[in-house]
Order: sequence, then C-alpha cells, then structure tokens
Amino acid sequence: MIEQGNLALLTDLYEYTMANGFQHEMEEERGSFDIFFRKLPDNGRFVVLAGIGTAIEELQKFHFDEEDLDYLRGLEIFSDKFLDYLRNFKFACKVSAITEGTPVFPREPVVTVEGPLIQAQLFETLLLNIINHQTLIATKARRIVAAAKGRTVMEFGARRAQGPASAVYGARAAVIGGCTSTSNMLAGQKFGIPVAGTMAHSWIEAFDDELSAFEAWGRIYPNNCSLLVDTYDVLGSGVPNAIKVFDQLSKQGYENFGIRIDSGDITQLSTQAREMLDLAGYNKATITASNALDEEIIQSLMSEGAAIDNFGVGENLITSASSPVLSGVYKLGAVQKADGRWVPKVKVSASIGKLTLPGRKQVYRLYDPRTGSPIADLVTLRSDDIPENIEEMKVLSADPEATKRFQTLKNVTAVTLQKEFLNEKGELQTELPNVFEVQKYSKAKLAELPSAKKRLLYPDEYPVYITESLYDQQQELIENNSL
Amino acid sequence: MIEQGNLALLTDLYEYTMANGFQHEMEEERGSFDIFFRKLPDNGRFVVLAGIGTAIEELQKFHFDEEDLDYLRGLEIFSDKFLDYLRNFKFACKVSAITEGTPVFPREPVVTVEGPLIQAQLFETLLLNIINHQTLIATKARRIVAAAKGRTVMEFGARRAQGPASAVYGARAAVIGGCTSTSNMLAGQKFGIPVAGTMAHSWIEAFDDELSAFEAWGRIYPNNCSLLVDTYDVLGSGVPNAIKVFDQLSKQGYENFGIRIDSGDITQLSTQAREMLDLAGYNKATITASNALDEEIIQSLMSEGAAIDNFGVGENLITSASSPVLSGVYKLGAVQKADGRWVPKVKVSASIGKLTLPGRKQVYRLYDPRTGSPIADLVTLRSDDIPENIEEMKVLSADPEATKRFQTLKNVTAVTLQKEFLNEKGELQTELPNVFEVQKYSKAKLAELPSAKKRLLYPDEYPVYITESLYDQQQELIENNSL
Repeated sequence: MIEQGNLALLTDLYEYTMANGFQHEMEEERGSFDIFFRKLPDNGRFVVLAGIGTAIEELQKFHFDEEDLDYLRGLEIFSDKFLDYLRNFKFACKVSAITEGTPVFPREPVVTVEGPLIQAQLFETLLLNIINHQTLIATKARRIVAAAKGRTVMEFGARRAQGPASAVYGARAAVIGGCTSTSNMLAGQKFGIPVAGTMAHSWIEAFDDELSAFEAWGRIYPNNCSLLVDTYDVLGSGVPNAIKVFDQLSKQGYENFGIRIDSGDITQLSTQAREMLDLAGYNKATITASNALDEEIIQSLMSEGAAIDNFGVGENLITSASSPVLSGVYKLGAVQKADGRWVPKVKVSASIGKLTLPGRKQVYRLYDPRTGSPIADLVTLRSDDIPENIEEMKVLSADPEATKRFQTLKNVTAVTLQKEFLNEKGELQTELPNVFEVQKYSKAKLAELPSAKKRLLYPDEYPVYITESLYDQQQELIENNSL
Repeated sequence: MIEQGNLALLTDLYEYTMANGFQHEMEEERGSFDIFFRKLPDNGRFVVLAGIGTAIEELQKFHFDEEDLDYLRGLEIFSDKFLDYLRNFKFACKVSAITEGTPVFPREPVVTVEGPLIQAQLFETLLLNIINHQTLIATKARRIVAAAKGRTVMEFGARRAQGPASAVYGARAAVIGGCTSTSNMLAGQKFGIPVAGTMAHSWIEAFDDELSAFEAWGRIYPNNCSLLVDTYDVLGSGVPNAIKVFDQLSKQGYENFGIRIDSGDITQLSTQAREMLDLAGYNKATITASNALDEEIIQSLMSEGAAIDNFGVGENLITSASSPVLSGVYKLGAVQKADGRWVPKVKVSASIGKLTLPGRKQVYRLYDPRTGSPIADLVTLRSDDIPENIEEMKVLSADPEATKRFQTLKNVTAVTLQKEFLNEKGELQTELPNVFEVQKYSKAKLAELPSAKKRLLYPDEYPVYITESLYDQQQELIENNSL
C-alpha cells in the first residue's frame, strides 16, 4: 500500500521561519486563512473541488517525529522554544471547507483555516499542494467525461504521472471528475476504485504470431477476453484474429468480448471494426480506444461517429497536460489580537487582480427558487446576516478587475457552502465520504448548473458577488494601506 | 520523512494480467525490455536523464505484503500459482542504465531490463513513472538554469506540484538539472538539498505596518535578513523600509541582507531597487525575483538588464508547465526461449514513428578525438563488435521517419553509455551517487556538447545512429511481420 509517510515537512522553509517568528512576536495571535483560486485551467469558469478528504486526513495526522526535529534543529534557524512547541504539537485550528466535488468559482474561499498564527501558517504548502493537484485533475476529468457523452472514461495515466503519488491521488481525483475506473492498481487498492486493462503490445510480440497470442489470452481469461488489435494491422489481422478467438470461446459458452485500438485513425478503424464484429455476430463486443486522448480529440471522435464504447485516457488527464498548473493560494484574511478582536487584512499588489478579500468569510450559492438553478455565488463576511430567502440585496462583483457597480439580487435562496470539518481540537465534524460518493455528489451539483456555464469552449460566466459590507471593508483597508 | 510505502502495485492492471499469462504460457522465457524517449519536451533535442537512483532503489525494495496479495486475490483474476510466485518474489532481472544526469537523445535505450518475462513485465509502469517524471523536471531545470546564465536558480514549486511526492522528487530532479536549493523542507531532509526562503506576504500583513514587520524579522533573523518588499509598494515603501532595517542591523555588526520581489515589472523594480540599495551602501545585499518565472521570462529579464541575483522558480519548473508530459516507453526488444536462443522483436505500428529497435542493445557516445566533443550517439546490437576507436563504419539514422541512407563514420572514439546497475540477484553493481554528485556529472556531460545543440530555441539536431546489423534485423522483422 502506498503511504505518504509524515508530511509535516512538506512545506516551504518560509512557513517555518514565519511560524518561529510568530511565536517570537505574536504568540497569542490567531489568523484566518483562506484558500481560493484565481485563474482557472483550460479557460474554464469553474473547477471541481477535490482533495478535501485527503487534506483533512493529513491535517489529522500532522505531527513531528524525532528525525524531523533533528533535521529542523540542524538548520540552526529555529529557537529551542519553537522546537519544543513542535515536539508537543497539538492541533488547534478550526478547518472549514466547501464539500468535496462541488463546482467552485474564482475568488470564493473553498477552505478556511482559523487558529494560532504559528500553526495555521504551517499548513499552507501541504494544503495547497493536495488541493491544487486533485482539483486540477478532477476538473480535467470532468471535461473529458463531458466530451465522452456517456461513454465510460477510464484513467490510464500512471506511467506518465508526475511521480508515484501523483498517479495514485490523480486517479482518485479523476474518479471524482467522473472516470469509472483506473489502470492503476495501487489506486484501486487504496481507494476501492475498479481496475481496468488487459494486455500491452509486449504480450503479442512475445509470441511467434498474433493469433497464438490471442488464443493464449482466450485460454487464460475466457470470462473477459479483451484483445489489443493494433500490433500489426488492425483491420488486416487484429480484428479477424480476434474474431477467430471469440468464435472459439463462444462455442465454449463465453460471451464477454472486447477489442482495444491504440493507434491510427480511431474513427475509421473503430467504425470498420464495429462492422466486422457485428457481421460476425459480436454486436455486444466492446471497442476501447486509447492513444493520447483528451477532451478535444474525444469530442471530435464523437462528432465523426467513431464506434467507441470506452475511452482510456492517459497522460493528458493525469497531468492535465493542456493546463498543468492550478494556482490556488492561501491568504490571510484576518488576525485576532490577544484581546479577542479580529482585524481584517488585505493583500494589495501591483497587479490589481491579486487584491484579496479581507475578513472572516462565508460563501453561499444563490438559487432561483422558481427553476432550482444556481444563478450566482455570494461571498460574505461571517458577520453579515444572510437570510435563507433573500428578498433584495445590493452586491458587487468579487473580481477586482470588474467595473465597480452595485447589482441588486431579488428573491433568491441562499445555501451555505462552507461546512466545519475539524474543530479546534482536531475532531472530525463532517464525515469524509468515499470517492464514489464524492463523484455522485459532484454529478448532482454539476447537473444543477445551466449548460452554458459548463460548455468546454467559451463557457458563459457565472457571477461571484460580494456583499456591500465586504466591499466597504476592502476599500477602507486599501486606503489605509497606502503606506 | 516522506516514505513512498510499498510501490509494487504502482502499476497498470495489464502488467499483472500479462505476467499471470506469461507464467501460464511461457514460464521459462525471458525478455529484454528497453526504456527510451521519442518526442522531447519544449522541442528540445535531448533530455537530462534523471530518476535512475530512485528507480533502482525501488526495484531493490520490490516485494509484496500480505495486504497486497489479499487485494490481488480479491480481484479474482489471478491463479493461485501466480499469487504464490508473488508471495515468494525473488528479484531476478539484470538492470542496465545510462548514468543519471547524462544528456540523452531520442530512441536510445536509457534503461534495459533483462529477466523472466513474468517479472520484467511487472516493472514497466513503476520505472516509467519515476524516470519520465524526474527526467522531465531535470530537463526543464536545465533550460531554466541555462537562461539564468550563472545566477542561482532556487526551486520554489512545492505548492503547485502535482501531489506531495511530485514536490519532493521533483526537487531532487530540479537539483540534477542545476538548481542550487529548494524551498521544500521535505526534499531538504530527504536528499540533503539546502533549503531557501524567508517570509510570505502573510508575515507583513499580520503586523500593523510593513516597517514593524521588517523590524521584527530583523530581531529574529539578524544573521540573514531577507525581506519581501512588494506587499504594498516596492519602491515607495518596501525598499525604503528594508533599508531602515538594514541600517539598524548593520550598526549591530550584521551584514547579510537581501530583498525579494514577487510581483510587478521585475526589470524596472529590480534595477531601481539595486540603485537604492547601492546608494544606501548595501551593494552586497542580494535581490531575489520570484512570480511565475520560466526560462523565457528569465531570458528576457536578463537581456533587459534586470538586477537579479537569485531566481526563485515555482510552478513552471515543478510541473514543466510548457511541456508537462515526457512519454518514455518500455518496449520489448527480444525474447529468450527456454533453449537459450534470443529472438529479436519489433513493434510495427500504423505510425511509422512508433517503430522500435529490435534486439538486445547497447549505446555508445561517439567523440571526435581531435576536439573531445561528442558528435553522435550510436545504438548497436550487443553482438556488434564496436572497437573503442572506430576507423570507419557504415551507420544509419535511428529515426524511422528519416530518409534511409548510409552514412560513414570515420575516426571516432566510442564510449559505452549503459552500465550494469543490478545483477540478476538484485545486487547493486554501480554505486548510486548523491544528488549533487549527479548534478556535477550532468554539468560535465552537458559542457561536452556543442552549444548549438543546447540552444533553448531551435537547437541543432544531434544524430543518433544505428549499426547496419541492427537496421538489417529491423527490416527483416518488419517483412516477416506482415501478417
């Protein structure tokens, strides 16, 4: 079984120099940190939030072994007091998050960590690493699954993933995004994902000829005989030889057959292979396509009428190759002074787009009660009083690059998105569902969204608003920040 | 410490169905498998081979725990005999590889695994995953380090890496490619890489004003005071406040100062900050730039005369964002029959570019003895007799898409590239150097290459040849393969 070991040091040095500094300068102060996304992959309008379950599990395990403390001491940067604090590390942060699988939008806080500055600062890199990665892959999987229009999509990317854990947790995320199975047995073992795959070209090459290789396979796996038909010539030898083996097996009463095509023009090869299989009486035999697929190629294959039942998608899914970085950030929203008072904080920058939303916040999804569809999300201060049924409310865009003007919401239903996952003792407050439960939830939440927002190319924008009080607080802080 | 756990199941299901099949059909037969690359990232002409050390270590650990065997049994695919074989798994493959850090070229076998088919087949995904990932990142690091022309490049990407292990092993690869340090403490701990970094914006925001934040930092870290100057206004407040703190510290005898700029126009901000620092007497204070850098931006900053001493490179390095997939493959070159005879194998495909080189092979780097520079690589059959000094030899391009014509090599020196790393008992035959030794070796091997081959844009092609006997064998197999 894959074990990630102790990830307490999966962090940037500066988190530790800052934490050591916070202990020195403001030991009693607490912070409220938010994770949010700005630019989204593949010019999409949303991402499928993933990695929450993994991240919460890692926080629950967070601790320091002697070898970690030895390493930190050896750097000769940290005070003995700080090293003692780490030796006796006691989790003391409240962690809230939007439910895993939810489609989420730019600038809304998807995770909020509140606790001692010295401690909340330490989780930045670990949380971002896990949530950026899994959200990226779940989002890519959603696009590929959407393009496949109901055909199954299998995750086949282990050999091209960026390292072992990327393959395993990437497969988890791919299932959240809608994949039905993985080729990766370690992911199958760890997360209970069905594993898929049959043979590689090396099987066929190891035999003196293709038919012998297929026949041998039929002997060993008669119950589920899927044959790779493109080692030499798909239509000239692969499919005819496969049919010979299916004939032998079906005489013995077997009936679960399939072929896989991994090269050449998939549309032409699959449609002709389909005809050959049907003509031979194997209209239930499945055709699987692999070979460097992604959502664009699958869309094109589907529109050309390719006869594919299953898509096996590898490198372009497991690395989100067309857009391989999700740059979620972890930003300080407020500091709680020793006297209990919360002071909102903002990050101003030369780039206006990097301006943050200050304060302790909550997010709501706003539904049109007549259609049941979400029409926008709303980021508020925790102190804002948001009724479940909003009759009328002035809001502004959350995007600092948008024109500053008020819009009026009328008659919408507000549903709270962030839930508490860990309380300040580190106790789990919300259960962590398994990966297929997350997938199911994600499908339901995606189904709510109007299709124009989900289009793969040039999707319509989905508004994220902020309240007037949040806006006022932001503006006030910007003015005071002109140092 | 990060531990990857047991990666024996980090593989695709089909490796196991094939291995189970090989035991059933050809238990005594052995295979020779090669890893090689075809298309290279960023339109480069070579990759920096990395991951060999990690891969060899994983092979040495390869085994099955009871929970792995339970999982495999539960799939109801494998014979009891096969599960027994795995329970008593005994490594029995010879593994040869090109030395880690070597620049390697398309189609040459960089790793060769020879052993029982049932076993050699199982390593495919694990080896490809590790070697594809680390080679990709080392290659990207080499490009970025080349663009920085002697300025140090620090690896800063942990939060955007594709999962925890990707951050850690990616940092290892980045050092092989020439980075001097990492922000990632887990990589620092595991591989002895120096760790770098100071503060994030949250440090400054947690204080009431920037100067208080800088002063506090100076109190805690007077020996090495590096300040992030772009939270509010680099030239208006950040640099002036930093100079105030440097003034206080230098009066106390400290002198190790620096600033970091993470947004805005780096060229303009760094040159003006440099002037301000110099004017205040801090011409030794270093300037670090971060903010979504890559080799193109660094080249442009360098040509504009930006005053940067250190580049901190994050997401674009740790994911190789411009080219995030390296598609190394693991292909069967030959099968050894029970009687000891080796039978060469070829993979023909609808795409001519996918044609493989059959047989048991070796690779040589050919040097011009007058200049000491390599002029080409040569892939041979192990049975070819290659003298150290080649007076004259007919060769052809290894690329199946190149025009088929002989070329004549004259007066070149041939140096063997593949060495044995593991013998058939799994005993280490070649020591695994630490990451900085690999970096040093890599630099030396890169220095040998003519600069035209290393250019970042449109590099000159470096030829990879095959011998006449290898070509003849390939052609003969293609003809016999027209099934």
